[in-house]
Amino acid sequence: MIAEHTLTQQYLRIRHHSEAICRGLETEDYVVQPTADVSPPKWHLGHITWFWETFVLVPHAPGYRVFHEDFSFVFNSYYETVGKRVLRTDRGNLSRPTVAQVYAYRAYVDEQMSRFLDDAEPTPELIALLELGFNHEQQHQELLITDIKYILGHNPLLPAVEMPIRENPTLATSPDAHISEGIYIIGYQGDGFCFDNELGLHRVYLNDTTLSGALVTNGEYLEFIQAGGYQQFKYWLSDGWAWVKRTGAKAPLYWHTVDGIWHTYTFDGLQPVDPDAAVSHVSQYEADAYARWKGTRLPTEFEWEAAADQFNWGSRWEWTNSAYLPYPGFTTAEGAVGEYNGKFMSGQIVLRGASVATPDGHARSTYRNFFQPHTQWQYTGIRLVK
Amino acid sequence: MIAEHTLTQQYLRIRHHSEAICRGLETEDYVVQPTADVSPPKWHLGHITWFWETFVLVPHAPGYRVFHEDFSFVFNSYYETVGKRVLRTDRGNLSRPTVAQVYAYRAYVDEQMSRFLDDAEPTPELIALLELGFNHEQQHQELLITDIKYILGHNPLLPAVEMPIRENPTLATSPDAHISEGIYIIGYQGDGFCFDNELGLHRVYLNDTTLSGALVTNGEYLEFIQAGGYQQFKYWLSDGWAWVKRTGAKAPLYWHTVDGIWHTYTFDGLQPVDPDAAVSHVSQYEADAYARWKGTRLPTEFEWEAAADQFNWGSRWEWTNSAYLPYPGFTTAEGAVGEYNGKFMSGQIVLRGASVATPDGHARSTYRNFFQPHTQWQYTGIRLVK
Amino acid sequence: MIAEHTLTQQYLRIRHHSEAICRGLETEDYVVQPTADVSPPKWHLGHITWFWETFVLVPHAPGYRVFHEDFSFVFNSYYETVGKRVLRTDRGNLSRPTVAQVYAYRAYVDEQMSRFLDDAEPTPELIALLELGFNHEQQHQELLITDIKYILGHNPLLPAVEMPIRENPTLATSPDAHISEGIYIIGYQGDGFCFDNELGLHRVYLNDTTLSGALVTNGEYLEFIQAGGYQQFKYWLSDGWAWVKRTGAKAPLYWHTVDGIWHTYTFDGLQPVDPDAAVSHVSQYEADAYARWKGTRLPTEFEWEAAADQFNWGSRWEWTNSAYLPYPGFTTAEGAVGEYNGKFMSGQIVLRGASVATPDGHARSTYRNFFQPHTQWQYTGIRLVK
Amino acid sequence: MIAEHTLTQQYLRIRHHSEAICRGLETEDYVVQPTADVSPPKWHLGHITWFWETFVLVPHAPGYRVFHEDFSFVFNSYYETVGKRVLRTDRGNLSRPTVAQVYAYRAYVDEQMSRFLDDAEPTPELIALLELGFNHEQQHQELLITDIKYILGHNPLLPAVEMPIRENPTLATSPDAHISEGIYIIGYQGDGFCFDNELGLHRVYLNDTTLSGALVTNGEYLEFIQAGGYQQFKYWLSDGWAWVKRTGAKAPLYWHTVDGIWHTYTFDGLQPVDPDAAVSHVSQYEADAYARWKGTRLPTEFEWEAAADQFNWGSRWEWTNSAYLPYPGFTTAEGAVGEYNGKFMSGQIVLRGASVATPDGHARSTYRNFFQPHTQWQYTGIRLVK
Repeated sequence: MIAEHTLTQQYLRIRHHSEAICRGLETEDYVVQPTADVSPPKWHLGHITWFWETFVLVPHAPGYRVFHEDFSFVFNSYYETVGKRVLRTDRGNLSRPTVAQVYAYRAYVDEQMSRFLDDAEPTPELIALLELGFNHEQQHQELLITDIKYILGHNPLLPAVEMPIRENPTLATSPDAHISEGIYIIGYQGDGFCFDNELGLHRVYLNDTTLSGALVTNGEYLEFIQAGGYQQFKYWLSDGWAWVKRTGAKAPLYWHTVDGIWHTYTFDGLQPVDPDAAVSHVSQYEADAYARWKGTRLPTEFEWEAAADQFNWGSRWEWTNSAYLPYPGFTTAEGAVGEYNGKFMSGQIVLRGASVATPDGHARSTYRNFFQPHTQWQYTGIRLVK
Repeated sequence: MIAEHTLTQQYLRIRHHSEAICRGLETEDYVVQPTADVSPPKWHLGHITWFWETFVLVPHAPGYRVFHEDFSFVFNSYYETVGKRVLRTDRGNLSRPTVAQVYAYRAYVDEQMSRFLDDAEPTPELIALLELGFNHEQQHQELLITDIKYILGHNPLLPAVEMPIRENPTLATSPDAHISEGIYIIGYQGDGFCFDNELGLHRVYLNDTTLSGALVTNGEYLEFIQAGGYQQFKYWLSDGWAWVKRTGAKAPLYWHTVDGIWHTYTFDGLQPVDPDAAVSHVSQYEADAYARWKGTRLPTEFEWEAAADQFNWGSRWEWTNSAYLPYPGFTTAEGAVGEYNGKFMSGQIVLRGASVATPDGHARSTYRNFFQPHTQWQYTGIRLVK
Repeated sequence: MIAEHTLTQQYLRIRHHSEAICRGLETEDYVVQPTADVSPPKWHLGHITWFWETFVLVPHAPGYRVFHEDFSFVFNSYYETVGKRVLRTDRGNLSRPTVAQVYAYRAYVDEQMSRFLDDAEPTPELIALLELGFNHEQQHQELLITDIKYILGHNPLLPAVEMPIRENPTLATSPDAHISEGIYIIGYQGDGFCFDNELGLHRVYLNDTTLSGALVTNGEYLEFIQAGGYQQFKYWLSDGWAWVKRTGAKAPLYWHTVDGIWHTYTFDGLQPVDPDAAVSHVSQYEADAYARWKGTRLPTEFEWEAAADQFNWGSRWEWTNSAYLPYPGFTTAEGAVGEYNGKFMSGQIVLRGASVATPDGHARSTYRNFFQPHTQWQYTGIRLVK
Repeated sequence: MIAEHTLTQQYLRIRHHSEAICRGLETEDYVVQPTADVSPPKWHLGHITWFWETFVLVPHAPGYRVFHEDFSFVFNSYYETVGKRVLRTDRGNLSRPTVAQVYAYRAYVDEQMSRFLDDAEPTPELIALLELGFNHEQQHQELLITDIKYILGHNPLLPAVEMPIRENPTLATSPDAHISEGIYIIGYQGDGFCFDNELGLHRVYLNDTTLSGALVTNGEYLEFIQAGGYQQFKYWLSDGWAWVKRTGAKAPLYWHTVDGIWHTYTFDGLQPVDPDAAVSHVSQYEADAYARWKGTRLPTEFEWEAAADQFNWGSRWEWTNSAYLPYPGFTTAEGAVGEYNGKFMSGQIVLRGASVATPDGHARSTYRNFFQPHTQWQYTGIRLVK
């Protein structure tokens, strides 16, 4: 629950963090979109601002005037269906609005929001809407970091940039985590915020299982590479093998050999791979193949949730072996704000935990992140069933 | 368990059924491949023969000589990796071997198999291998029927052909099926044959659920079409909506309007849609959208299995809301014969039940069929949770 | 000019040649289409029959009844725009009409045509129409041969088949051909049949040029391969290099190394490459790169026509360096019969001469054949400017 | 010929014009690449600088130090084959080097060039190299203008921007131009600069022809649109019709209907189409279809050159009916500088004249511009044969 007297401060604190992430960027870095999954940073900054404008200010702040009437189809995720002019508006092709205009848009909305929040009646409905907005902005903060890494990590100059995260934190070692056969309750049980896909509290029956207390390290993953893991059909799912063949994948994203030594792009530029750090930027296909090579498997999301308080997590999103599907009793909320999670319950894999890019306070052991299995650009890692 | 004294007869009975399915075909019908999912009938007939040759005769029949040394890379599902010459060998581009040669191949292998089985020691290993072969051939029998339907149903002459199945059987009505909250055991518990993906007997915890006793009919589905179901984003999964946009889907596969009346291609040629028959040839995207339009959902594969003895099933493969994933304890068998189910545990959806094209004796309530969610060419239908 | 009293015989003689080309085929060989440029032999046989039916019998033979009303959209080159049902009708996916039905169609039309021609008044209009029909059928006869070669030459069994041509004839050697600077008249000047694209008799001014009397041989082309010609950007047009990279081309079509020896598929099966035979099945990109490697160039179509009576030609279509464009004064004839050549005057290259697959009497030194520059499946060869 | 004492001034004058074109841009406008044909302005600015550095300073200026060793693979047109790291470096995905760095690069090279030119011996070789560099930069100046128009004209805000050209100049009317049958000399005959593709002076024989003294206007082209020109197969080349179907083209590039009125994007923003201005931004397919609809044709490049001094030209590049092919005697110059024109002599169409975006002094009546026939983003127009 949000303490009532801090609404404006909380709003501004979260808003400032989005800008802090971008502090090291050049104007040009805000603009490009090297692949469809990545959005230009300026689009993220505009989109989350548009969210506050559209879902809070327009319906709730009397007399509010929108900053620019055309921004709704530039910064709306679904703008294809709203646009009045028939123009392809791929995000990475848009030089306008400029970065300065986007920051002006943010400043305008922040001022209006502050004024609104200072006077607002903290009704449960408003609190719920603000919490959704905070969490929406935090999701985009994580994407801002991973998208900036992709943009700079695919530039031939491989530039370093200041970024307020530590990509390879030292985590205290955990013992392996054991869960005993029986019934477990799955889903969010607290009284704070959670997304709709975590609701639908329900029981699952799990078998005896042991999860590794540690994530797979770069050094361990390197053994898989050196053992010819990427050349052997038998370790891979059929779709995964097709992905290897199509992309020519030979290692995690951002890995390059320089004079025979594996390096990886980081926010400090190209660095030798640290064998003790947790492997990152692997697809679920790679995680699954690695597990088969080790003679084991990835945990299900239910095993993970049941065991999560027994180990340290939070540096890598951990691929599970669970497809992203609705919990029993899941219902899609009415209206544009609530609908979006359910739409993606096809073809995606659940990731659990959080990563070094996840904003403080945005992590929960019941959080269900989800991406397509070929995805590598998030800070994704591997925890094995033993 | 197969009764020992009938091995040869059982073998021949199953083999003859494959040929019975093709009895009405012209030579040309055996050759074409109008889409990647469909294989030419002659390829099916050759492939299942190659299976017997490769996995039974070559390793177990002393002195066996292969019929033609080049057939292994023509009829092997994985022949791309075995071929000695670098030629594209897309199945639908191959006029040779001819249909007559494929039937000669079958006759040769059948004679050798008969001779072998007459004298064979019915060891458990042999019985297991034969049962796998029988089930493998039966899987291809169902595909033969659906692939022939696709080939003829995409020919502008829409020819009728004799086929030993009834596409729209009259099923006795079942009452709705109720399962009570609690633990259910999932997986194959008999001592006959089952596929590896049905093993890994395990418990699941299910909530109170009611499944409809009846499949959705054409008439009911037509209401969805007429209500503009295919035009409204809100009923569709994100991937499903992209599929609608990409394919221009407006109705189940094989449906055409003739003078404003919906018709459907059947083995009797183009016929008016029967409103009382169970809808068929829908993708999971369509099944899911229909369910949302009705305010409900598809069952999970576990709910289906737990409730299956309460209703009649077997005319349509029933889309579930479960991704095709390994059961706890699933392990991939060693070697080429056993491996293939596990490879596909990514991006596929489980279908339960059986269809009018499923051979007698090949249906089990624990059977886990699986296809990608856009697939329509199987006899796929819809059962709703109430 | 066709002698008036032989119309029926001439018609039947040409018709029978189409069937003679197919004599060695299995039914299955008539059906497949391994690439978009190739049509199934049964489509060719049906299409040229449809031409006679549509353009001669229907408008001119009183009381003629079409063989089958649906054949017009199956065998019409432009049937996509005529079809009454919305079905994809890619030629290679059509098992029906069967080969037997196509032959029945031919027999029916031949009988009706014979009856019609026996009684017909040989007006100039009719003679012109018949000549167009004869030449149209002869064009498809050449395509039948090259398409059959493609179908069988892309089958992993590489079957031999009887074909009434000699692929590598021995041609008497010609001296080099010299043309002197000056004005030359280009275009068809006879009073027999020619296509519309040969008309528009006009003058061109040519420089002193010498054309080789001989075609480039396999042995000579092999030197280009062995000199690394396919690996060096500098010899290739930009589009040609992109084609090499996209297709991985390393040699002419149908060439394969077997134990280090270059072989080529012929109608006698796979045979060692004959170093003395004229190279065949090269794209214009390859012809152009070969010429650059030799420090010379391909002739223009005008140089070729001006020099053509000085050398033997007729075993290979000879790539020129001329784009396929209208002659001055070219006009598109009115109506469906006449229009088709002009439509393709974009993106195509002129080939001159004729090939071993060209029917007797179909070759003229003014004939302008044309294909896209990447095309290899015709009997295409190289003659250099010296 | 360049007057010897003005080398530095001439250099700087041309260099400054490139920057003048970009004066109205925001930083973001320099970065994006909405389609493959368009390059980001910052790439153009860097590439032409790299040209001076690589072909003049590095080989000729003693002791020159390159500005940044990585820029050669960022700004080299052919950098794909030179790169030391395996990274996709699509131009539109590169945020770095920044615009400021590119301007610093320009300033550095300009200073070094000035110093070099002040002292340089004006040998014929140096003069020739400088002239090539000037013309190369001028080519990119025209592309800068058309690429900027594409970038802004595909932005949903359709921003206006200052640009030192007049898009729709008023041209004095010319009478129709007549050429009489006979021999004409084609190719560059002056003693100034020309590109290699204009050399190979040669004679062509032309028929009596009349070219319109005026370009087709928007108003005239609008009649074609309103007559259903884009809906009728018969006016279009086969490739052109495929282009219409694939792209959904209904009008020239940049045309939009607003409340039923045709508007077009200009550097002043969206403006109503001026019926009296010369039509622009049409593909050759459109130019050719328009000509057929009018019952006439486009001129050949030889007719155009022979008639060019009889009419005003220079506001639109004029599509011809000539493929881009070598003149007799054309030879590719040795080395990287000279080679590039010959590489593209496949699949391209010649345009003659010049456009409102062509820099002063860069136009010649023998200039052979060339683009693929579907191209629309240049200032391309239509002049008909009468």
